Amino acid sequence: MQNKNHYCIIMAGGIGSRFWPMSRQSFPKQFHDILGTGKTLLQETVDRFREYCPIENIYIVTNKQYFDLVNKQIPGLDPNQILLEPVRRNTAPCIAYAMSKIYTKNDKAVMVIAPADHLIIKPEAFLKSINLATEFAESKPAIVTLGIQPNRPDTGYGYIQFIPEKVEQFDGVSRVKTFTEKPNLELAKAFVKSGEFLWNSGIFISSATTLINTYKMFLSDMLTLFQPDEEVYYTDKEADFVERAYTRCTNISIDYGILEKAKNVYVIPSNFGWSDLGTWGSLYENAPKDEFENAALSRNVLFYDTKECIINAPKSKLVVIEGLKDYIVIDTKDVLLICRKDKEQAIKQIVTDVKAGIGDQFV
Amino acid sequence: MQNKNHYCIIMAGGIGSRFWPMSRQSFPKQFHDILGTGKTLLQETVDRFREYCPIENIYIVTNKQYFDLVNKQIPGLDPNQILLEPVRRNTAPCIAYAMSKIYTKNDKAVMVIAPADHLIIKPEAFLKSINLATEFAESKPAIVTLGIQPNRPDTGYGYIQFIPEKVEQFDGVSRVKTFTEKPNLELAKAFVKSGEFLWNSGIFISSATTLINTYKMFLSDMLTLFQPDEEVYYTDKEADFVERAYTRCTNISIDYGILEKAKNVYVIPSNFGWSDLGTWGSLYENAPKDEFENAALSRNVLFYDTKECIINAPKSKLVVIEGLKDYIVIDTKDVLLICRKDKEQAIKQIVTDVKAGIGDQFV
Repeated sequence: MQNKNHYCIIMAGGIGSRFWPMSRQSFPKQFHDILGTGKTLLQETVDRFREYCPIENIYIVTNKQYFDLVNKQIPGLDPNQILLEPVRRNTAPCIAYAMSKIYTKNDKAVMVIAPADHLIIKPEAFLKSINLATEFAESKPAIVTLGIQPNRPDTGYGYIQFIPEKVEQFDGVSRVKTFTEKPNLELAKAFVKSGEFLWNSGIFISSATTLINTYKMFLSDMLTLFQPDEEVYYTDKEADFVERAYTRCTNISIDYGILEKAKNVYVIPSNFGWSDLGTWGSLYENAPKDEFENAALSRNVLFYDTKECIINAPKSKLVVIEGLKDYIVIDTKDVLLICRKDKEQAIKQIVTDVKAGIGDQFV
Repeated sequence: MQNKNHYCIIMAGGIGSRFWPMSRQSFPKQFHDILGTGKTLLQETVDRFREYCPIENIYIVTNKQYFDLVNKQIPGLDPNQILLEPVRRNTAPCIAYAMSKIYTKNDKAVMVIAPADHLIIKPEAFLKSINLATEFAESKPAIVTLGIQPNRPDTGYGYIQFIPEKVEQFDGVSRVKTFTEKPNLELAKAFVKSGEFLWNSGIFISSATTLINTYKMFLSDMLTLFQPDEEVYYTDKEADFVERAYTRCTNISIDYGILEKAKNVYVIPSNFGWSDLGTWGSLYENAPKDEFENAALSRNVLFYDTKECIINAPKSKLVVIEGLKDYIVIDTKDVLLICRKDKEQAIKQIVTDVKAGIGDQFV
């Protein structure tokens, strides 16, 4: 049920360096068909919102170097719907830009703000959550986050603690008590056990008016940079204006800059088969596996005496693996990575080493 | 010191399937720069003989599908020096063909017969051995093999038992007692301990006359097929004639067909840094290694917590390996193989499986 006041802001400017070597600065994770579905993560994300709002209300914010990729992968978008960041400045500026632009067109806008590169296995349940959140955000000046019911003490996610009480007549919406950063394992176990903690999905819903008012309280300098005195959005002055704003604004996340501080933040405990696909390990958890728990993401893979591995390679390539257990094997046109699954945190360091010692062309 | 009666027969028709996936039916091992020296194994082999005989006396026998490869890698050869086998029939027919052809041109020919794909680290010592063998073969009707002083009980080689007595005035030449096939480990240990066994290098020296006479005794039917009634070698009738001979001749090795049976077989115990480079493991043994015993045959390889591995990949590719010990990692344009080093005998089965289940294009 599309509503012309409903909008989406899809954040598609990340590099996904933990998904190296498939994810590259020139071609990050969100532009790949990482799950082998025939669609890239960005395309999947856009598709999920087609029922929620008209396609002309979907705005994609990305780094300017990815304009062609977005334009090619999501054909039919007006160039005004592809918001280009001149530099990377984290999520708060990205959202300040997009909401300010949308607000000049529609001051009744209610927006879902979501990363482009997440996995959602149950799109109907997702739609239900965002519809409830939208209804709530239309009824009061609230920022509504989506929290995921945790099924394991994951130390790779931030957590949201909620007050397990219904808010007014809205069954399923709770007040947020605190946001916490990625915990250690002990803490994560306690979180999950308590039943009061949810994974922070990074997806939230708010009216443009409410979000702007909240920026006024906590990030007013940044907001000012994105609120022009004259008409610039949807004109040929926009790019220069935004360039100047980004040069001057600080690098800060929406979580740290707004959500952790504001009092009008709510959460909907949800269960729509979510993963941030932050690492190869999280992709492994969510990928289909064979009887030996191997996840082959590419077509021609032969396993001999091999267990619990995740493999990706170009479509036409034959991969033969003998005698591996619990490894990540990622082959691309110009890079081959073999890494133990439980050492995947080494990939960030590897990328740094490659950049420093071998060359930019590989990162 | 070149001698115009000296000839070489280089056998370059093998497939090298244990070197899969680098060695392929369409591009076997001997045509690769497997050691990263800038020269292919065939080129290295030809170069080793340049001091022994004039280049026009070097004959290369190969399968007809490799004519272009030989022609390109060894420019300047007369097409008459590239002998083309229409089908694979093991070494006895290959040598029968080459010696018969050479004999029609020069009945005083003395020939070194050698595979194209071996490693010889000390070419001067090798030259010394073949010069001694040549001198001996010129003085009497002998077939002189080169045996390698073993430094370990290798079960991948055949062995030659010799009688440790000098033959006449020829210091360094011994009579052969027996040829043995690849032994088990226990037997191999006893062989090495006895001091009377040498590795069979597969390289031997004989005059054309002697070798033809020996074929007459043990493989006379085969010999007849390659001895035409009229002039065909070096004419445009040669290809048809050879085609017919190969269709009719049996598939048999020179070891089994001649050397194990003849009484005029001698051996020169040698030590010229030899390996048949039969498997990735034997290449690993002979390749330069870093402080962690890793042999990186390609340029851009980064190791993290990795030991005793052998890696090859295309020149331009970056390979990053974390947490492997004792593995073979071979990446080619269209195939990636990861296999434990002590399971390399599985490669033959893998190739069979790939051929049956995936497709001929990968083998």
